[in-house]
Amino acid sequence: MSEPVRRPIRANEPTNRLIPSERFAARTAGMTASEIRALFAVASRPEVVSLAGGMPNLAALPLPALAEEVADLVARDGQVALQYGSAQGTPELREQICEVMAVEGIRADPNDVVVTVGSQMALDLVTRIYCDPGDVVVAEGPSYVGALGSFAAYQARVVHVAMDEHGLVPTLLRETLSALATRGVTPKFLYTIPNFHNPAGVTMAVERRSEVLQICAEYGVAVVEDNPYGLLGFTGRVYPALRSLDRDVIYLGSFSKTFASGLRVGWALVPPAVRDRLVLAAESATLCPPSFTQMLVSRYLAGHDWRSQIKTFAEAYRERRDAMLRALETHLPPGCTWNVPDGGFYVWLTVPDGVDTKAMLPRAVTARVAYASGTGFYADGFGSRQLRLSYCYPTPERITEGVRRLAAVLESELDVIRTFGSPSRPNLGPAPARNGPQTPSPHTP
Amino acid sequence: MSEPVRRPIRANEPTNRLIPSERFAARTAGMTASEIRALFAVASRPEVVSLAGGMPNLAALPLPALAEEVADLVARDGQVALQYGSAQGTPELREQICEVMAVEGIRADPNDVVVTVGSQMALDLVTRIYCDPGDVVVAEGPSYVGALGSFAAYQARVVHVAMDEHGLVPTLLRETLSALATRGVTPKFLYTIPNFHNPAGVTMAVERRSEVLQICAEYGVAVVEDNPYGLLGFTGRVYPALRSLDRDVIYLGSFSKTFASGLRVGWALVPPAVRDRLVLAAESATLCPPSFTQMLVSRYLAGHDWRSQIKTFAEAYRERRDAMLRALETHLPPGCTWNVPDGGFYVWLTVPDGVDTKAMLPRAVTARVAYASGTGFYADGFGSRQLRLSYCYPTPERITEGVRRLAAVLESELDVIRTFGSPSRPNLGPAPARNGPQTPSPHTP
Repeated sequence: MSEPVRRPIRANEPTNRLIPSERFAARTAGMTASEIRALFAVASRPEVVSLAGGMPNLAALPLPALAEEVADLVARDGQVALQYGSAQGTPELREQICEVMAVEGIRADPNDVVVTVGSQMALDLVTRIYCDPGDVVVAEGPSYVGALGSFAAYQARVVHVAMDEHGLVPTLLRETLSALATRGVTPKFLYTIPNFHNPAGVTMAVERRSEVLQICAEYGVAVVEDNPYGLLGFTGRVYPALRSLDRDVIYLGSFSKTFASGLRVGWALVPPAVRDRLVLAAESATLCPPSFTQMLVSRYLAGHDWRSQIKTFAEAYRERRDAMLRALETHLPPGCTWNVPDGGFYVWLTVPDGVDTKAMLPRAVTARVAYASGTGFYADGFGSRQLRLSYCYPTPERITEGVRRLAAVLESELDVIRTFGSPSRPNLGPAPARNGPQTPSPHTP
Repeated sequence: MSEPVRRPIRANEPTNRLIPSERFAARTAGMTASEIRALFAVASRPEVVSLAGGMPNLAALPLPALAEEVADLVARDGQVALQYGSAQGTPELREQICEVMAVEGIRADPNDVVVTVGSQMALDLVTRIYCDPGDVVVAEGPSYVGALGSFAAYQARVVHVAMDEHGLVPTLLRETLSALATRGVTPKFLYTIPNFHNPAGVTMAVERRSEVLQICAEYGVAVVEDNPYGLLGFTGRVYPALRSLDRDVIYLGSFSKTFASGLRVGWALVPPAVRDRLVLAAESATLCPPSFTQMLVSRYLAGHDWRSQIKTFAEAYRERRDAMLRALETHLPPGCTWNVPDGGFYVWLTVPDGVDTKAMLPRAVTARVAYASGTGFYADGFGSRQLRLSYCYPTPERITEGVRRLAAVLESELDVIRTFGSPSRPNLGPAPARNGPQTPSPHTP
């Protein structure tokens, strides 16, 4: 390849200060770096036990078999796998996705499945096609930080509804929708993570599921069900998807936690009336998802016992959850409460009154433990007494050590508060109105 | 895995008609299926010669070597390749991308590169962070259909500026910006494809590049340079990127045409003031691009002679271009004009007055040849006398046959017009104001 031709006029690649490179759209005002994101850099230091991230533990993946599979994919089907494909995703994978969803009771047509670059993209596109600026989305409080990011990017307003140990509270949902209706506001959709909630760890009780659907239907609110962890339960019980109860539910799924997050293969299952818009939105977002990663997932599903691989994953997570719960019981000071997740990746911890988890985080990192502070999971500033602990990635030994360090940091915060008062509320008055899951369980010291 | 638990209330998965699944955002009104998209289904029939799509020809890829490479990637680095990564892309690939861009005279810091799922995603995100509804984007007329799709998705208005055989016409650009300024409108950016334009096939003359940058700077308009074809020239000449002349240019690149489109790896190179916003937007769009495909591209770039692979690709495209130009000269009826691309994938054809290329398309497909009609490449309804012919994918023999079929269809249209008049303009008056590249060259019969 020849050298580029001489530059015609300017040789010094100037920055032309006349160009206002910062004339950004109004929506960028809502785009702020999540608290979790800043943590990823910290978490990568080996001396820090990170209980902050949500990275799946892939140690159990059969890498040699996958290596053979992917080599064969390139050698045999390379001309297809390396070429553009359909915006909706490959027909083979869409059929297999329907088989995966059938485990949770969903009957679906592959034509209604749209493959996306992770379920984050599905969520982003659903928000794109539903939300005008100022539109309201209802979500559990706390909620997934990546969902809050997409809602903010499209200038939607989030109204939270609290959970208890059985998930989203139907009476509070009804109160919220009723209050909004009084003001003439119909939310575009309810965004819910019914199973092994991120970050709250709780699961929506089965008897609540139809109730939640019924309430949303009454108020004309669509339902978006995000279910990345549904197959990662610890009890062998599989909960019926909301989508299995109502074909109008928009369902988001992912292979990030059940196979490999680095392939970024997720999907949306949507009613036919939504599908065409979603495919058009997907096309303008990425033209098409990578053929290569889709075909690799298809080969994995077709050639490997993915059900027992998921069981293996879930067993590893259960072992880690147990280590975390034991450590919390053993080390945490009085006044902490947390839930007992029966699946997924997360424990949601409420610390004693007066402690601000966001303010405490730098001191925790100095003590070589990281967590995700609670405010990142709320659109409205709540969560300063909460934090999320992830047990998915570290070994049980590291989890135990991390909780021990966290307990020491908390003890030291409480010492300061007892001596000098809390900076936010100098004299320890009554606890604030509770929010998020509050599970006074045997695990509460 | 156990069966899902019994469904609590409803057993028949009803569609709850109370849920208004079609309360879409206003932006969806601009999302319409592109004319090209409808063609992809037709083009897949083997008897049709498709001169419509823009699929690269991957026949020259060294599949056995790539199969070994990817197997080694999974076996050695699977725990990283299959895991979440950074929203900005892997540091190694971002460094290699800077080496690739250096071929076109760009000096860049890997910190200013954001890896995306194809350059379509980069374009979509740049539009997301710049454009509020009603904002103006200036683009060549015709312009890339996927760009028009993203602009529509964010409710931006497109104002076209015509090209001639030397690309975007600076005096027309200045006139347009001046007229907009008179109305108080400052476009957010100029979107331009300077090299081997899609669909027009022309290249912006080197002496025009600084002029275009200067005009945009005068009017306070950012410049977005989309350059998927820049290294696929037929003459050995490499043009200096606009970004090599001005560090404030937002540059979009892609491996889809120089390596493999099915991996969906593209990028944006942006000024630092734009970068952080772009990374946040990328994070809310997909969390992160697939680690797996990025690491495969990195291994390919590190372990293979990618420069000579690109030369091999370009030689195949030149051979196909030559076949197309010969066939056009031999077969097309008088009154057709087209450009002679010296790189890339496309010939832009203007047909005789009275022929409507969109109306003619179904008859062409019946005659077993497909093309992309011109109106899809304009936001304003222009282009009914134009069409895009792609020579990238079919063999030279098929290209020749396709053009022969197209010529017959055109002859038959002209026969009808001579006999009955054109349905749109019954008596053949003077030609309409010309738009798009008009290159009365030796190749015009």
